[in-house]
Amino acid sequence: MNLPTSLAKMPDPKQYVSLRDAETPLFAGIDVGGTNIKIGLVDCQGRTLAYHTIPTEAERGPEDAAERMGAGVGQVIKQAGAAEQDVVHVGLATPGPLDLSTGMLLTPGNLPDWWNFPIRDRVSQHCRRPVRYANDANAAAYGEYWSGAGSEFHSMVLLTLGTGVGGGIVVGDTLIEGAHGCGSECGHVLIDSSPDARRDSLDKAGSLEAYCGAYAVVGRTNDALDAGRPSSLTEVRAEREITPLDVSNAAEAGDSLAREIVLETARYLALGIITLIHTIDPDSVVLGGAMTFGGAGHPLGEEFLQQLRDEVRPRLLHSLQEVLQIDFAQLGGDAGYIGAAGLARLEYLQKNTTDR
Amino acid sequence: MNLPTSLAKMPDPKQYVSLRDAETPLFAGIDVGGTNIKIGLVDCQGRTLAYHTIPTEAERGPEDAAERMGAGVGQVIKQAGAAEQDVVHVGLATPGPLDLSTGMLLTPGNLPDWWNFPIRDRVSQHCRRPVRYANDANAAAYGEYWSGAGSEFHSMVLLTLGTGVGGGIVVGDTLIEGAHGCGSECGHVLIDSSPDARRDSLDKAGSLEAYCGAYAVVGRTNDALDAGRPSSLTEVRAEREITPLDVSNAAEAGDSLAREIVLETARYLALGIITLIHTIDPDSVVLGGAMTFGGAGHPLGEEFLQQLRDEVRPRLLHSLQEVLQIDFAQLGGDAGYIGAAGLARLEYLQKNTTDR
Repeated sequence: MNLPTSLAKMPDPKQYVSLRDAETPLFAGIDVGGTNIKIGLVDCQGRTLAYHTIPTEAERGPEDAAERMGAGVGQVIKQAGAAEQDVVHVGLATPGPLDLSTGMLLTPGNLPDWWNFPIRDRVSQHCRRPVRYANDANAAAYGEYWSGAGSEFHSMVLLTLGTGVGGGIVVGDTLIEGAHGCGSECGHVLIDSSPDARRDSLDKAGSLEAYCGAYAVVGRTNDALDAGRPSSLTEVRAEREITPLDVSNAAEAGDSLAREIVLETARYLALGIITLIHTIDPDSVVLGGAMTFGGAGHPLGEEFLQQLRDEVRPRLLHSLQEVLQIDFAQLGGDAGYIGAAGLARLEYLQKNTTDR
Repeated sequence: MNLPTSLAKMPDPKQYVSLRDAETPLFAGIDVGGTNIKIGLVDCQGRTLAYHTIPTEAERGPEDAAERMGAGVGQVIKQAGAAEQDVVHVGLATPGPLDLSTGMLLTPGNLPDWWNFPIRDRVSQHCRRPVRYANDANAAAYGEYWSGAGSEFHSMVLLTLGTGVGGGIVVGDTLIEGAHGCGSECGHVLIDSSPDARRDSLDKAGSLEAYCGAYAVVGRTNDALDAGRPSSLTEVRAEREITPLDVSNAAEAGDSLAREIVLETARYLALGIITLIHTIDPDSVVLGGAMTFGGAGHPLGEEFLQQLRDEVRPRLLHSLQEVLQIDFAQLGGDAGYIGAAGLARLEYLQKNTTDR
């Protein structure tokens, strides 16, 4: 399912900083998606100096893409007028599953021609720099933590609401990537243990994703329509498959079923967030991705967020109720490359600390 | 509810190391419980050199106890024949809730006369050393991680099954203590979102603790007996209230309801563990506490563990199924003071790294 980006209605937060004001060393971040590869040059504070996007053209294979990533990094360096030697480390984010220890991209669903490719080392070779490799949801979380919605906090949980539900957990300098690359898989938190629980794209029953992923929102809508609930969406469905944007638009227009579906999504999401808060007790929970019903500043998005807070608060441990912090992400689609660059910086700093 | 320690049937793992073989510096660990305060002197590898226990005598108040903790630390140093200057830092674990930033013990249920006491600084004064303060479940987790069931791993989740369900999460040098002292509260992971979900001691519906705490196991047993299920426990209940040990003993003796309750506990616990594994993806999940039905080497305990693994495995992300590691804790009641000492060591090392 393709999510129309307009559903997110995210402002583009990219505000370039000039090289004159940047703090060196600099870091390049690469975020590989199914359609585009985003490449940014980022300074020591997470500010973007230059940005460039290239089509993924996945069918040309990963070797070709790795070569183009190397060229793209060269291009953002040139674009920013930076010196080659100021860019010391590169961050690379891709969809999972991946093997962080070997730097292998394993079997990503949306990149079938790229399976089992040693992407970290190949990109490193083309960039002529060490590469810090990460899962894209984790990189996005680190990006928001470093220079977005989490930048004033010590710890943060990011939930990315899209086709699926992804996540990233950061506590201080520790990004929870997991012993087997499956840390922060917040979409697989269980929220329903009943025998008739919904199933997610991996056929797992009762997961957060099975209720809050884009396909789940559409699925719940279809179920309600099948049950004969009146809605303006009946007409839409007579012509084509319903999309999350249809649900969002109908809710905005006052369709009561659509509104119910949106607020029900908040109730399901709340169950996952309650569990995550009691597990991590982060300073803040941050919501990103297209399925935020417009997000910050948008009436439906704000109502969704308020419903979520209202559902979560009373079910928390007493001492957590007053300090509850749930907000929208701030970096939009830039979080991935900025976070990848941030992780590259972290690795660079840690290596330099250890080596001295 | 008091849990008879015999339910755990844990061997005492304390093997003293002599001062001659110990690695300096040394660390003292203090674990404050409702009945006893355990104090140990531990070397740089987590090995116990000397151990001493004093009655909590909570009614004498926290100031009196803090003074006796100071004397107790002096005693274990003397007992081990160590030099005062070799013991550089003290770790202190107490039940929560507590405020780590100020070192205040807040409102612990089992220490009503100790509420809002600045325990970290008072103990520090009496020990004449810096004190690293921690929640007891978190300290126990760090103890198991440092020198028990997790000692070969980089990351570990400990679940302590007792009257309630506690926990501790360690990833590398990061112990997830939370932004507000409520990190690793694994007993508050949600496992049941149905309207008739059981409630825990804090009246929260559907939490792991509401199904797997000692009172929950007894509650589920009583419910089954009320529903007319035949069981040898009917006779016990005619005379007095059923305890978890009764359920455990009846299960061992072949009582089918009691066996069902034990295996059902494993099924409920599995739901919480699936969520924790997808959130943290630790190298290992470790089970401690009295409610492990005999624990390692005991037929019922081993059956409980096997049932748990069988319930968890098929519901994990594919790449995690083969690497699943769930085991019993190894340090028994020593985990708390050893972990407190270990956290003191970590703080000592981090301070020394930062200061240089």
